[in-house]
Amino acid sequence: MKIELTPIGTIHTPFKTVENMPIQPSGAKHVAGTIEIFPEYAEGLCDLEGFSHIYVIFHLHRSAGHKLKVIPFLDTVERGIFATRSPARPNPVGLSVAEIVSVKENIIEIRGVDMLDGSPVIDIKPYVPDFDECSEIRKGWFEGKAGNAPKTLSDGRFK
Amino acid sequence: MKIELTPIGTIHTPFKTVENMPIQPSGAKHVAGTIEIFPEYAEGLCDLEGFSHIYVIFHLHRSAGHKLKVIPFLDTVERGIFATRSPARPNPVGLSVAEIVSVKENIIEIRGVDMLDGSPVIDIKPYVPDFDECSEIRKGWFEGKAGNAPKTLSDGRFK
Repeated sequence: MKIELTPIGTIHTPFKTVENMPIQPSGAKHVAGTIEIFPEYAEGLCDLEGFSHIYVIFHLHRSAGHKLKVIPFLDTVERGIFATRSPARPNPVGLSVAEIVSVKENIIEIRGVDMLDGSPVIDIKPYVPDFDECSEIRKGWFEGKAGNAPKTLSDGRFK
Repeated sequence: MKIELTPIGTIHTPFKTVENMPIQPSGAKHVAGTIEIFPEYAEGLCDLEGFSHIYVIFHLHRSAGHKLKVIPFLDTVERGIFATRSPARPNPVGLSVAEIVSVKENIIEIRGVDMLDGSPVIDIKPYVPDFDECSEIRKGWFEGKAGNAPKTLSDGRFK
């Protein structure tokens, strides 16, 4: 069985290649970009400007096949792909939280862009932390390493 | 252009129909379920047990077509679909944060289940709040309503 999705828009960012990109939104807080939603879906953006942040679900369109174990950017040993945010996933789907700067017609200006230019948009959801509120967070192998994400850039390992 | 994805597993939950389900993980904190990852992807679950929570990206497989404006469960007026978490999205993709109870071979036991039984799994990502840390959250039309999510159940409006 296959799941067939249709892009609803395109993400425009300063990052034309995978190398030297921020690896997480926390490393891209001030990087600006735009999400162009195709005009036929623009009506669905109503009421979005009241939110400060959105989840962007997008296609990792340059991902070249998957691996079940990878050495992630923040580590030196192999980890299971589902315990990482690496793009070499069985389904190349990315998830980022971005800050909304403005919503005008079919264009969402955002900040906190860790996405490749031209990435196809799958979905936009309002970010409402109450819904996902978690206590007692454990961060697995990221523990003590997640703080390095803002200063770590990607390289060509997942090309 | 289409994006073709292949389910990597199936979610097992107590919810056989859309009616009377929790509408968000915050309303389902103690509801247990399991994510069965197909054996060929099980190796990718290594290292996941060190995390307390995961993002589950899944197919809203019972969604019957999309609408650009909907009256969400927590409101009485129409809102743009991308400013809601309603399932009637152009791409029927759901996103939940679930608590990991255990990871054994290809089975993830979870708590915080607001998903329909049988939902196909698209991706699992570790939940690392540092990456998505946001200050100055504004919650748009959810403001003052998001707290009702734990006690609100779904109905048949998106069937």
